[in-house]
Amino acid sequence: MTRRLALVGLGPGDPELVTAQAVRVLNEVAYFLVADKTEQHPGTADLLAMREEICARYVTGKPRIVPVPDPERDRDDPADYGAAVQDWHEARAVAFERALLDNEGDAAILVWGDPALYDSAIRLAHRIVERGAVDLTVEVIPGLSSIQLLAARHRLVLNTVGGPVTVTTGRRLLDDAASHDNLVVVLDGALTCRRLPDPDAWHLWWGANLGSADEKLVAGRLSEVADVAWRARSQARQARGWVMDTYLLRRC
Amino acid sequence: MTRRLALVGLGPGDPELVTAQAVRVLNEVAYFLVADKTEQHPGTADLLAMREEICARYVTGKPRIVPVPDPERDRDDPADYGAAVQDWHEARAVAFERALLDNEGDAAILVWGDPALYDSAIRLAHRIVERGAVDLTVEVIPGLSSIQLLAARHRLVLNTVGGPVTVTTGRRLLDDAASHDNLVVVLDGALTCRRLPDPDAWHLWWGANLGSADEKLVAGRLSEVADVAWRARSQARQARGWVMDTYLLRRC
Ligand SMILES: C[S@@+](CC[C@H](N)C(=O)[O-])C[C@H]1O[C@@H](n2cnc3c(N)ncnc32)[C@H](O)[C@@H]1O
Ligand SMILES: C[S@@+](CC[C@H](N)C(=O)[O-])C[C@H]1O[C@@H](n2cnc3c(N)ncnc32)[C@H](O)[C@@H]1O
Repeated sequence: MTRRLALVGLGPGDPELVTAQAVRVLNEVAYFLVADKTEQHPGTADLLAMREEICARYVTGKPRIVPVPDPERDRDDPADYGAAVQDWHEARAVAFERALLDNEGDAAILVWGDPALYDSAIRLAHRIVERGAVDLTVEVIPGLSSIQLLAARHRLVLNTVGGPVTVTTGRRLLDDAASHDNLVVVLDGALTCRRLPDPDAWHLWWGANLGSADEKLVAGRLSEVADVAWRARSQARQARGWVMDTYLLRRC
Repeated sequence: MTRRLALVGLGPGDPELVTAQAVRVLNEVAYFLVADKTEQHPGTADLLAMREEICARYVTGKPRIVPVPDPERDRDDPADYGAAVQDWHEARAVAFERALLDNEGDAAILVWGDPALYDSAIRLAHRIVERGAVDLTVEVIPGLSSIQLLAARHRLVLNTVGGPVTVTTGRRLLDDAASHDNLVVVLDGALTCRRLPDPDAWHLWWGANLGSADEKLVAGRLSEVADVAWRARSQARQARGWVMDTYLLRRC
């Protein structure tokens, strides 16, 4: 019998940013799969709790949350980095497949933000289907992304007038900033924009823990506010053990 | 007395994609301002109706919708295109300011998709505030973008693994595709990707009228599906008098 696997975008943290569609689907499935990284990253227990809160608020009855422990990543062997990442993805698919086989009925994977942006759930689901051990229909429920909440808080249009916007990662920023004037950066643990060669030429709109009680916002010329943002980031990180931040950089 | 002007993202058409926050704010304001382009573009009456439907579904009591007629754009004087556009923006700000002065209480501007992407409401609100005739607090309520619904329908991750994604317009596509491998295109009335020099090198994921009853999806190698998408687009356009489409292009 074909079962339903819904990848449900929950938005960037604020339970008010969940869509009516996500609420409907959360109420239609039998249980929720959540990648559990608390073994490797104790700070992420908060993130798990936030997802549980969203479920508790919108799901009728007691939501059944099934944490799927994230496999260990072999970080000691950078020599064969590509293969190690692939093994890890396969181990993860196997862990989720196991959870699906162990539980009955339709399932949802709870995704932070939008499943379409820098999230592994869609590729994970495709891999589970390819393995062929569970008969699944995969469906994606879009969610608001942290990038959109950043823009809303700063009352900012992400694109320039008639122009483009590029979303990239901290790791790629120094390269991408050489050929782009308008960039959104995610997955940047080091606020890499501090290392741009011409900080006077950029404007920064930064936000951390958007949608949570200790949201932080900083905006201004990069040369003037980069350190302010870095301090705010360090404080947020110290307070909770983790921080998530994203920003828009635009040439002045 | 300071009044509230909320720019509320309603998502790309499907009333189920509205967030709980948007619903709350829609119920808090006294009336809704909607840019009315039906004079210039009769087809857009449908779009107005779709926004009214969303309000009717979620707003308690009879929603008071105030259409603001869009000023005429002077298209006959391309010699001074920049100035004409600026005049038009000013005329628009004046029209909305007028509507705010003529009505009492807090207002919302209903925005298609996300106000942060290719929408004029945020710049319009900034301009009204600058003019100084109405005392306003502007607040932005993010909404799901058509781009995210495109990705969800195709079960697609917009970024490549660890890589960037660039959102651009039809007008810029041929330039931007020369230096980018992964692009989302909006505002493209001509499906400009059909003119890319190397259609065998790209994969296309296309969607029209996403979130509506006559949504259309096409995916495949650009060389094989560009005409299929163009025909689907023309049919959709013929059926309703208008069509909205967006797509992701990725080098194979
Ligand atoms: C693995 S990605 C997931 C992105 C997510 N799918 C989305 O749509 O927002 C995680 C990155 O998203 C950004 N992020 C996620 N939630 C955030 C929040 N609440 N505030 C600021 N940044 C956030 C940060 O850049 C973080 O490194
Ligand atoms: C003026 S822009 C507004 C974008 C909007 N703010 C958003 O977030 O989706 C209009 C363009 O968005 C895209 N679009 C908007 N709604 C759409 C829909 N329902 N289906 C497909 N494309 C859509 C089309 O590319 C259209 O030309």
